[in-house]
Amino acid sequence: MERRKFIANTAAAAAFPFIPKINLSSSGNSNDIEELLHKHLPVNFTRDGLNLSPTLYAKLLEQLTLDDDFQPDSYGLGGMIHQFEEKVALALGKEKAIYMPTGTLANHIALRKHCISKNRAIVQYESHINRDSGDCATTLSGINLISLGGKNVIYNLDELKYFLEDNSHGKVKTPIGVLSLETPMRRKGLQRIPFGDIEKIANVAKENGIALHLDGARLYIDAAFSGKDIKEYTKLFDTVYLSMYKSFNSVNGAILAGSTAFIEGLHNERRMFGGGLPSSWQQIVIANYFFDNYTIRYSKALQQFDVFKSLLEKSGKFKISALKNGSSVFKLMPNSSINSEQLKINMDKNQIFLPNLNKADMCFYIKINDSLVYNDMQELANVFLSNC
Amino acid sequence: MERRKFIANTAAAAAFPFIPKINLSSSGNSNDIEELLHKHLPVNFTRDGLNLSPTLYAKLLEQLTLDDDFQPDSYGLGGMIHQFEEKVALALGKEKAIYMPTGTLANHIALRKHCISKNRAIVQYESHINRDSGDCATTLSGINLISLGGKNVIYNLDELKYFLEDNSHGKVKTPIGVLSLETPMRRKGLQRIPFGDIEKIANVAKENGIALHLDGARLYIDAAFSGKDIKEYTKLFDTVYLSMYKSFNSVNGAILAGSTAFIEGLHNERRMFGGGLPSSWQQIVIANYFFDNYTIRYSKALQQFDVFKSLLEKSGKFKISALKNGSSVFKLMPNSSINSEQLKINMDKNQIFLPNLNKADMCFYIKINDSLVYNDMQELANVFLSNC
Repeated sequence: MERRKFIANTAAAAAFPFIPKINLSSSGNSNDIEELLHKHLPVNFTRDGLNLSPTLYAKLLEQLTLDDDFQPDSYGLGGMIHQFEEKVALALGKEKAIYMPTGTLANHIALRKHCISKNRAIVQYESHINRDSGDCATTLSGINLISLGGKNVIYNLDELKYFLEDNSHGKVKTPIGVLSLETPMRRKGLQRIPFGDIEKIANVAKENGIALHLDGARLYIDAAFSGKDIKEYTKLFDTVYLSMYKSFNSVNGAILAGSTAFIEGLHNERRMFGGGLPSSWQQIVIANYFFDNYTIRYSKALQQFDVFKSLLEKSGKFKISALKNGSSVFKLMPNSSINSEQLKINMDKNQIFLPNLNKADMCFYIKINDSLVYNDMQELANVFLSNC
Repeated sequence: MERRKFIANTAAAAAFPFIPKINLSSSGNSNDIEELLHKHLPVNFTRDGLNLSPTLYAKLLEQLTLDDDFQPDSYGLGGMIHQFEEKVALALGKEKAIYMPTGTLANHIALRKHCISKNRAIVQYESHINRDSGDCATTLSGINLISLGGKNVIYNLDELKYFLEDNSHGKVKTPIGVLSLETPMRRKGLQRIPFGDIEKIANVAKENGIALHLDGARLYIDAAFSGKDIKEYTKLFDTVYLSMYKSFNSVNGAILAGSTAFIEGLHNERRMFGGGLPSSWQQIVIANYFFDNYTIRYSKALQQFDVFKSLLEKSGKFKISALKNGSSVFKLMPNSSINSEQLKINMDKNQIFLPNLNKADMCFYIKINDSLVYNDMQELANVFLSNC
């Protein structure tokens, strides 16, 4: 870590102008992507994925465009984009998939189509579609978002059943087109909906003729902690949104998957919404690379994390604990003799990126991601222990 | 040209797998952007800009991220994006500008805001907003697009005045929020609205209390052929959309500029529409580079074109002529002894990209762009003349 081997133009590092930027193109001629990552990727505890710096991103992009299979798309059509859509559809056990520039649009277009003739959608109150999408579904698609569960990750089954019963007695019919579930939930420290609850809710929806949509932006993270296969989730849902940006390190982008009948023609909607980017290869080619071995890589990351955790806890200076129904977010608790704010500053200087200290809980809510795979855990622990 | 100095993974070149790809990273250590372009950029007659191959794009991206001023954005906020927005706003003589992922969204959000309480918008029938945007303004924003001018680039003043007079007599009021003009017009071979007509139409709109929006996707090209300054156009309009993708070589992106009161807060609309990309530095940093010297570079390109044109015409084998009120599209007419389809194939092999032959008119409608600046016109003419 003392070697300052990392390149520095991440947003976090930009705050520390005294860290010298290492010009990748002058640091040897390595063009192998895994080698580049081992050499240049810092550990971060703040993101779902690798947090590639722009320079490293561009370097990987360059290498990947030289691949024989690489072909650019034009307005999301042609080129390698369709192979990638097919690959992800297959992995999700769906017939067809389409690239969308953002998760907001992927969720919205799914709800919009499910609700063509039934204008209500059931969502969690704290979900992205309800809290972080500017009421797009209501404003632009006339969908009444019925939010249940209040501040909880998920409502209980009785709340759902009560609402469905009550809703069926309206004087004017207000049919429900879709029930959408987000797991893990961004606004709740990436806590998961327990898998058994997902199954029960899906059954109730099906009994009531309501389509099911999964906001699975971080589905692969959820699965890593529930121990379920991806397809055990996706078979419960008619449509699935998966982010390319979060786990798969693309600068942006999302996949919406479902039946052929559902997905076909949605490129017209994408374009109508202003989401028809002239080209998307810069996202696809990166996501494609990191999608392939994600499950293996993430499971390696969790092994690395176990090593790191035990080194830190053995020192007596830190405790690390999981959240209830948690996924990749853990509580890192420095003991009371440690100046935690100074610790974060010291770590930043070493290009080890911690989130801000949560002063109420006196801990760091750290995110575990595959940047751990490209770094040595003993070295990492040493930097922590020698800086507090 | 015989040197095959160009890299080959453009969409056009992908059709010719026998052209060897030259690995940029193994072709010397040049990191100077202008040098890279002189060395690796092929001539194209098909695009508004340089038609950077993905590999060359990634290479430029890498270099530009190493610049001291470079800072990435997060969801379109922070980083260098705001400096760029300010720079473009200034160049357009407007108070404020905002980045949008596509021109479709830039036009739509402008019309949407102009039409908050007046639901009609006057557009050219053949305009992008009327023909190529999936009726977004009507479907998502309840705007009635009144299209005038039929198949012409622009309606005449009487048609406009007649409509305004007639519209004012409706039994139910149907007020007009905005009049939008597109110039040059994509669907009409990039023919321009004569500048005098723009002024007259703008005056009529103003007299009638109607806001004005300019779809100036290719505004800088229009200005290069009208001889007017950019600000002579923009001062006539309340809002202006300028593409980053067409003249400025970004893979996508657009700028919407106007008064502070108009632009402020539009990042919320952008996000609601699903256009809030997690990051946009990969577009901005490229557009920023090519925006700076565009006018000088394009005027150099036109000088180069004059040289090329006279070399070809002197041979007696080709004639080149401008369109009426034309801009960057010219008619390239091979004489009747030339097999034009074979010519295109030969040119492709030499990585000189022609559009498809227009069989009705027996000519190529070529686009003049700044790729000419990075290539030698005598060499270019030689390749044409030795391949027909």
